[in-house]
Amino acid sequence: MAIEREAKATWTGDLRGGQGEFDLESSHAVEHEQVTFASRFEQPGGKTSPEELIAAAHSACYAMALSNEIAQAGGTPQALDVQADVTLGPDPAGGFRITGIKLTVRGEVDGLDEAGFAKAAQGAKEGCPVSKALAAVDITLDAALES
Amino acid sequence: MAIEREAKATWTGDLRGGQGEFDLESSHAVEHEQVTFASRFEQPGGKTSPEELIAAAHSACYAMALSNEIAQAGGTPQALDVQADVTLGPDPAGGFRITGIKLTVRGEVDGLDEAGFAKAAQGAKEGCPVSKALAAVDITLDAALES
Repeated sequence: MAIEREAKATWTGDLRGGQGEFDLESSHAVEHEQVTFASRFEQPGGKTSPEELIAAAHSACYAMALSNEIAQAGGTPQALDVQADVTLGPDPAGGFRITGIKLTVRGEVDGLDEAGFAKAAQGAKEGCPVSKALAAVDITLDAALES
Repeated sequence: MAIEREAKATWTGDLRGGQGEFDLESSHAVEHEQVTFASRFEQPGGKTSPEELIAAAHSACYAMALSNEIAQAGGTPQALDVQADVTLGPDPAGGFRITGIKLTVRGEVDGLDEAGFAKAAQGAKEGCPVSKALAAVDITLDAALES
């Protein structure tokens, strides 16, 4: 079973003066969303960037994976909050690279103690398909039950 | 110089019956966008998924990188169209993984011939920060000038 999802981006003009937009083509949930050099490398100014989209993909994937890990450990996930912070910086080999992703996770969970939750959180970090795809990036995890 | 971008996701309930949403926290360009098990593993039904967001991130990043490669090769980018197809499938090691990403690129470019464009397209595939982050995934490229 293979599942395909598709998006399209266009770019007109040069890198600094030009502008782009993307469409989520499988769902059409988001269309004609603009991206510029400034929104990526300077201030967002209401426009997104590839790194912010990676943060969205990773946080959503991680949250789903964690709900599954909690259930497999015998717990019941009530509410999970996941924040992904993606950092872009100079690449010593040239150009730029994503230098790190920090996942901050808070969970309301029945039936798991802090140690059980920490184990599930680590399992989700390793098992989530987006984490696997981003294996080249240093991913750090800060996970705790909501008090 | 480090650039940070942030997104948040929440998940309530279990994996199959629950539901999630994400917000682009740096730009606020997209908020309260829903994701479900069905929208990811079955049909989108108007809702996005982590893999579609990866496709959006990669296509937008690639388009920007290509505009830069074209200029560095002495050409002038007019319009670039990039489609990213992300495939999710079973992971022999357990769970799921992103098994491949196909980039389909068409460009209107002044001052580069097909060979020059092909070289720029390959350079963008290797140099785009999202490609580097996704080094664990098999990425294929189909690039041609618009006739």
